[in-house]
Amino acid sequence: MTAKTGTPGLDSRAFLMAKTDQAIEILKEKGIDCWLTYVRESLANSDPSLELIYDGDLTWESALILTADGEKIAIVGVHDAPDIEDAAIFSRVIGYREGISEPLVNTLSRLDPHAIAVNLSENDPLADGLGAGLYKLLQRRLGGTLFGDLLMPAEDVLWSLRARKLPMEVDALRRAARETIAILEDAGKSFELGMTASDVAHRVQQRTRERGLGFSWTPKMCPIVNVGAGSPVGHVTPRGDAIVPGCAVRLDFGVKVDGYCADLQRMWWISRNSEGPPEPVAHAFATIVDAIGRAAEALRPGVKGGEIDEIAREVIRQAGYDEFQHALGHQLGRAPHDGGGAQLAPRWERYNETPYRQVETNSVFTLEPSIALPEYGTIALEEMVLVGEKETEFLTPRQTELPVLDLG
Amino acid sequence: MTAKTGTPGLDSRAFLMAKTDQAIEILKEKGIDCWLTYVRESLANSDPSLELIYDGDLTWESALILTADGEKIAIVGVHDAPDIEDAAIFSRVIGYREGISEPLVNTLSRLDPHAIAVNLSENDPLADGLGAGLYKLLQRRLGGTLFGDLLMPAEDVLWSLRARKLPMEVDALRRAARETIAILEDAGKSFELGMTASDVAHRVQQRTRERGLGFSWTPKMCPIVNVGAGSPVGHVTPRGDAIVPGCAVRLDFGVKVDGYCADLQRMWWISRNSEGPPEPVAHAFATIVDAIGRAAEALRPGVKGGEIDEIAREVIRQAGYDEFQHALGHQLGRAPHDGGGAQLAPRWERYNETPYRQVETNSVFTLEPSIALPEYGTIALEEMVLVGEKETEFLTPRQTELPVLDLG
Repeated sequence: MTAKTGTPGLDSRAFLMAKTDQAIEILKEKGIDCWLTYVRESLANSDPSLELIYDGDLTWESALILTADGEKIAIVGVHDAPDIEDAAIFSRVIGYREGISEPLVNTLSRLDPHAIAVNLSENDPLADGLGAGLYKLLQRRLGGTLFGDLLMPAEDVLWSLRARKLPMEVDALRRAARETIAILEDAGKSFELGMTASDVAHRVQQRTRERGLGFSWTPKMCPIVNVGAGSPVGHVTPRGDAIVPGCAVRLDFGVKVDGYCADLQRMWWISRNSEGPPEPVAHAFATIVDAIGRAAEALRPGVKGGEIDEIAREVIRQAGYDEFQHALGHQLGRAPHDGGGAQLAPRWERYNETPYRQVETNSVFTLEPSIALPEYGTIALEEMVLVGEKETEFLTPRQTELPVLDLG
Repeated sequence: MTAKTGTPGLDSRAFLMAKTDQAIEILKEKGIDCWLTYVRESLANSDPSLELIYDGDLTWESALILTADGEKIAIVGVHDAPDIEDAAIFSRVIGYREGISEPLVNTLSRLDPHAIAVNLSENDPLADGLGAGLYKLLQRRLGGTLFGDLLMPAEDVLWSLRARKLPMEVDALRRAARETIAILEDAGKSFELGMTASDVAHRVQQRTRERGLGFSWTPKMCPIVNVGAGSPVGHVTPRGDAIVPGCAVRLDFGVKVDGYCADLQRMWWISRNSEGPPEPVAHAFATIVDAIGRAAEALRPGVKGGEIDEIAREVIRQAGYDEFQHALGHQLGRAPHDGGGAQLAPRWERYNETPYRQVETNSVFTLEPSIALPEYGTIALEEMVLVGEKETEFLTPRQTELPVLDLG
């Protein structure tokens, strides 16, 4: 069976069995007895949670149910049944012809749950795979029964399921980080005067394809390349800004390995007359390195994401800079901005409740503070860290020095 | 700019300008003054409607608004703003830092709409891109204003927007159909005794990759290959059923060209001692050809999808067979099961309102009745048809004869 996880190295069935077993443990721990993933036409409108429990597509309305008692049940259209039976993740597969109502209500009646957690979340796009119309339709399918009143957000289940990386997930992220660094180092060696941000991006994309790797995000802006003060900052396609003596170059890049996304930033200084970076650049760079170190030190299971963001933000402020206009970091996993509850984010409207959520053991985060220098552009780095029981580990060697390249 | 539409041949910006202009015409026609596509982290949890109006990803909560007055407005996070400005689809791009509430409410106050259509649909997964949690969050963002009460499903807008194919969309579908037929014909020439369904699938997949084409659906089951009576029917990965004398072979396959999906079925009879197919197979095949012809004749703008399904179903019943356990046909477009409202489907629970919807001019449908013969497997064909003002056109030459292959 071709696995959606793609490249060899992560066995799809082993992953799905382990992840569904983990989900059952989480249901027990949180006292939620039934988790329902409700999908249809997953090929065209997928629920991001589906790939955590099944690696195929489901056409008609389908109910994938995991219970705290350890049951794994799939109710699907008859035409989707043979493949999900063969996958042998779900111990019971029920195929229907005309409509799902009857088998769904019968199954729920047998399970008699106290609550039915569904994939709905105001806070986290990755936990919000249930469409607003499909949610209404599900309520209609359950009409006339009490089950409609038992629906609740599965947010808390999905956050832990995404945040608590299994060893095989950490391993994939580690390999993705290593491959990313190798390509970033190769890029650094290729810089020439006159090369544009767009040229740099094409080389990085070519190397990625040569190595048979995927991109962590939309290829046209993976990598994001900033050259000098003129490049627009953000989720932006690289443009024509050229490398000149006396400018900073920054790449924000990640490859996907076995379905897991790396996300790292590295910087270089292009020397003028063999000189190092001017003092404002050196000072900002040292401040970024310091902010990352202080945040990593404080990052432990149980702390709230917003507290870690605030530590880094305060380092930047104390050094006399304006604070950055984004979060310090986000989780990484099967998505480059993975769900998982806690984000290392300020308490701004757009981050919803995520700054108030506690960090979980075995989560992987980015740390990516930035300082905008009007004359030189944005000074920033991005590292990937794994939150262990006792210590936080950088998944690749940190960048602590700004390499000075003399291309003259 | 790299277009999401992928291969050359369909200009991304021309497509998006034409499609957003078409949306504005549809808003006028339907008397809906404001259509709001509300998305976040579209990379990980995309709204299928987004690619009809923008070909980039949007990270933070984003509001893409089209109005019956002809305005095209985008409210996005500051980090997403430069690329959407460059794309020059939206005449007004508003970037925000901390939260979307203020610019969104200000914009709506200025527009003063009577209704705000959002991407929510019980009937159509393709029109149901707004997450149930994001819908709640949107209502919260609009809290304290009257706009929350103006939200309504954009289903009717999106159905016409998908159903009414522009000439460039029809052209892409036509090319996809042609490429699909070429690969299917090549497959038919490659059959050998002992070759398995899985072998056939691999050859087809290899040819598709050699031609640099995409797959219309999940590659592991594209093509679906049925050999003889033993192959499971439906959305199933091809297995080890081997080609033997006296068996039917059926492929269900489609390639994607410029983002548009073909979907066709072709059949062959593997001869025993140079004999043609047995009478039951020949009769079922002729019935299928007849059902397709009768359905195509009746397929006109304005008829209800369910009526066309019933015509083909009745041909099958009248010929003495059990009716097929699926719809006669579905729309085709950027998705292999495209939205667009009307589906040529029976009035079963799982098809919701789609059998009651009227067929629109310039829609593209499949026609794919089937007959299950216990001794020989499923006898079926699938054709692609374009609904014109006056007549329905088959996008590739129809299959009307069952080729008899002597592989002995």
